[in-house]
Amino acid sequence: MRFLPDGKVDGSILAKRVFPYLGSLQDEILVGPNVGIDAAVIDISKLSGMMVVSQDPITGAGKNAGFHVVNVCANDVASMGAKPMFFLSTIIMPKGATDDDLEEISKDIERAAKEIGVSIVGGHTEVSGKVSDLILSGTMIGFSDRYVSTSGAREGDDILLTKGAGIEGTAILAETKSEYLSKYLDLNLIEKAKGLLNKISVVKEALIASSLGANAMHDPTEGGVLGGLHEIADASNKGFEFYEDKVHLYSETKSICNILGINPFGLISSGALLVISPKEKTNSIIESLLKEKIEVSIIGKVTKEKRSHERISQDELWRILDTKL
Amino acid sequence: MRFLPDGKVDGSILAKRVFPYLGSLQDEILVGPNVGIDAAVIDISKLSGMMVVSQDPITGAGKNAGFHVVNVCANDVASMGAKPMFFLSTIIMPKGATDDDLEEISKDIERAAKEIGVSIVGGHTEVSGKVSDLILSGTMIGFSDRYVSTSGAREGDDILLTKGAGIEGTAILAETKSEYLSKYLDLNLIEKAKGLLNKISVVKEALIASSLGANAMHDPTEGGVLGGLHEIADASNKGFEFYEDKVHLYSETKSICNILGINPFGLISSGALLVISPKEKTNSIIESLLKEKIEVSIIGKVTKEKRSHERISQDELWRILDTKL
Repeated sequence: MRFLPDGKVDGSILAKRVFPYLGSLQDEILVGPNVGIDAAVIDISKLSGMMVVSQDPITGAGKNAGFHVVNVCANDVASMGAKPMFFLSTIIMPKGATDDDLEEISKDIERAAKEIGVSIVGGHTEVSGKVSDLILSGTMIGFSDRYVSTSGAREGDDILLTKGAGIEGTAILAETKSEYLSKYLDLNLIEKAKGLLNKISVVKEALIASSLGANAMHDPTEGGVLGGLHEIADASNKGFEFYEDKVHLYSETKSICNILGINPFGLISSGALLVISPKEKTNSIIESLLKEKIEVSIIGKVTKEKRSHERISQDELWRILDTKL
Repeated sequence: MRFLPDGKVDGSILAKRVFPYLGSLQDEILVGPNVGIDAAVIDISKLSGMMVVSQDPITGAGKNAGFHVVNVCANDVASMGAKPMFFLSTIIMPKGATDDDLEEISKDIERAAKEIGVSIVGGHTEVSGKVSDLILSGTMIGFSDRYVSTSGAREGDDILLTKGAGIEGTAILAETKSEYLSKYLDLNLIEKAKGLLNKISVVKEALIASSLGANAMHDPTEGGVLGGLHEIADASNKGFEFYEDKVHLYSETKSICNILGINPFGLISSGALLVISPKEKTNSIIESLLKEKIEVSIIGKVTKEKRSHERISQDELWRILDTKL
């Protein structure tokens, strides 16, 4: 173990601590990460005609940050109906970071990349006195022959939700507020809640729903399921009915939200996917998802008129993280 | 003017302060930046068969950071022979940042993007207590039907350098050490030195040299021209002769390096491009560059044997920035 000096991390360290962890390699990569190579070259001649790109940072998500950044970027790409394929990550570590820390981050990025079949093709790694915690910034590139967006919802469409509300928020709260929660909850339940992070990928369900004709999709992140519903409705210039009691909540989510006084529908929800389905396609989408063991329920309907539902101005997570418990 | 709250910046602010500044719009963009849109969709069916992607951060380059991040990413892509087309930027601002600050950054990004004909297609904007200064992270995507890399140098090839050594470093030193430098140098010269930042794009020369058959190219950033020469030689498993006296130095670079005791060949050099040219193509490359008013000289030759040249372990810039003058 050694401390890394300020500035761009040296190629000899990257070769040992980063380049061995590049996820699922793919044939299209003509030039991948290497010392002295500043850009990746990818053969796109056999890929579908539409490229979908998303960029997102993770600012201090603790020890799962690498896993997290790959998944949030992949979810954005898959929610447009494209298969995530190539990932670039910029890793900015605070002073005092070691080569062991860097390898942990690389392994964490690779774990997520392998689960969804993505290659890491480039990025940048440095130590900077300008950050007090790990800052990751990722870019995911995917390909598809059609796309769905948040703006495609039509009157009468069903609104489906996979897995459950508040998955990501539940895991983050279990991690950051575990001491307080352990006064009220069983430790097993808190550990199970942390484990919900492993459910945050929506790539599989997004590609199924898109291939079966979803009109719009959205992975509800900040602002939770309610925020996601509003984003779809606003982008599509429609309203929605919301069947609160139909939304699945994991028991860990219920317990933690109860104790912290949190509305689970306004809690950051990566891991759940909102699918806007034409009525005639709803059954086949639900059947295909259940066949893949992905829970799903109908939680609402798209309406012509805009209706007044509660708007979430700030994610419940930030409200609670700022509260001294 | 108003202060921005912690977390992801609200869509209504992005709509006013970011989305009006998206550079040179291009027909291929099917879905671009908008509220509630998490990924860009680009029609690649008519683009060339190779995609070149680069990601780089800027950690606190002061008021020109936006201009800088677009150019360093574009330079990496163009140095592989591809035309930079689509850019994504993640903007992480420290607490206390205002909407006016954000608009300045957006305008600065757009200025660089317009100069090289690039569209901004996505990104992310947030305020975070984890950073003490602006952190930008950019991704540039370009396309080409062939690529050149740092590893293509062959024995006997000429080594050309455009513009001059230490361009970027000269501008940064003029900005950060202006008080000290003003004791020795004319203020006009210091201002001219700051203005060298406007020369940091190598996109034009890289696309010319690539189209005329360069074997390898590299834009020498950290470690300067000497570092860049070593990177090409190492990647190509060759050696090089270096004709120091043939390297062009702007008078601002000479003066500032003299006063600070800096080796200009080890000073960060975005703005200069190293072109490895087969002997028979050198004349046509030089003529075409001069016709576009891009200065260029032959500064070395690729050799079979590895030779021992000075290696730069740390960029001269970091050495001096750490020195109290």
